[in-house]
Amino acid sequence: MTITLYTLRGADPACTFSPHCWKAVMALKHKGLDFEERPLRFTDIARTEGGFSKTVPMLRDDGHLVSDSFAIAEYLEETYPEHPSLFGGDGGRALSRFVEAWSQSVIHPAISRIAVHEIWELLDPEDQPYFRESRETRLGNTLEGMAANSPAEVAAFDARLEPLRALVKRQPFLGGEEPLFADYIVFGALQWLRIVSTRWPLAPEDGVTAWFERCLDLFEETGRKVRARAG
Amino acid sequence: MTITLYTLRGADPACTFSPHCWKAVMALKHKGLDFEERPLRFTDIARTEGGFSKTVPMLRDDGHLVSDSFAIAEYLEETYPEHPSLFGGDGGRALSRFVEAWSQSVIHPAISRIAVHEIWELLDPEDQPYFRESRETRLGNTLEGMAANSPAEVAAFDARLEPLRALVKRQPFLGGEEPLFADYIVFGALQWLRIVSTRWPLAPEDGVTAWFERCLDLFEETGRKVRARAG
Repeated sequence: MTITLYTLRGADPACTFSPHCWKAVMALKHKGLDFEERPLRFTDIARTEGGFSKTVPMLRDDGHLVSDSFAIAEYLEETYPEHPSLFGGDGGRALSRFVEAWSQSVIHPAISRIAVHEIWELLDPEDQPYFRESRETRLGNTLEGMAANSPAEVAAFDARLEPLRALVKRQPFLGGEEPLFADYIVFGALQWLRIVSTRWPLAPEDGVTAWFERCLDLFEETGRKVRARAG
Repeated sequence: MTITLYTLRGADPACTFSPHCWKAVMALKHKGLDFEERPLRFTDIARTEGGFSKTVPMLRDDGHLVSDSFAIAEYLEETYPEHPSLFGGDGGRALSRFVEAWSQSVIHPAISRIAVHEIWELLDPEDQPYFRESRETRLGNTLEGMAANSPAEVAAFDARLEPLRALVKRQPFLGGEEPLFADYIVFGALQWLRIVSTRWPLAPEDGVTAWFERCLDLFEETGRKVRARAG
């Protein structure tokens, strides 16, 4: 009954940079579950587990396959109810979707604009053509054009985090005194940026930085065990 | 054991426009509690209930006084646990603070920039000097200067709601299938804008508009019973 979590990797198998995969890693750690992480390249995903999912993270647990980070968190919450809760009740589960919507509509696009060229540099040569083509189409610019705009995006990043900055003046985690899955949703985004980019946009004295460091400390510093370009 | 809710009014006692007071009204309705609303002018607050609070909403319940909309919601949740929950558990309570932080750091400042001159127009003459002075200091501009910038702020408003727009594609309320206090936090902001401003910035076909209409429908259309400049 080993749990397997398929995640995403760069050319270096230890470079597991995907924000969505980090959410799933932290959710499994939060539940106190043992699991084996198997990092894949983009081009490996379609030939894994019979092509069950086009994306990672993908979880295999005792014959069950689940993809999508939020669906994985919901699966873990339902399957392991006696382990620490990821949502803190139905209200927490519903409002975690708002945190996800905020992270993916405000934070993720900004990180893409900052770091898409640096992500491409980290990928396995086999993944690079797919990534370049799909991202250049999505962003309407070349990766090199995006890199040229990156400093302006870094300068604008700080203000996008204002809601989280205001929150962590009041409580140590989005989940309150202790973290919940909502924390891992936003942690995943900043961990992605930390791993792939040399351009870290937050000041050491920023409350968001202090919150992020608290997340990096969790579960015996799970988040610090990956090599990060931001140091 | 009558519950009294002190709210804010304009020159017209029926013009109860404060976003924070609307949160408290909706929280009381959600709990199914009878209450008497007593609208005050800004300059009445300090001489009400012995100057207990400098701000409204302020709740008096059987000798207890509570001010601040979130504190009122927490008081109601603890005092009336057998009534419908405002948070849906501890996780929902914690994450409602993130919704509050988002609303107050992203939505409220934008509404102030759109409508501060129109709010001033609605106030009782006794309140107007205090309001002008405090808002001009806070905003670093005259009310008339803010009014001149208002169309640009209206044009930028739509994009600020993107996280809520993404969410309501997935579920009818922030609270999930049914509303929670988190919905009233954001409803209060848009209800404020609807009441004070002729400049309604959202398209009829916008998913946020549909969500707002669902909120206006709640509790026998409580939110529609106030006169609104946006119609």
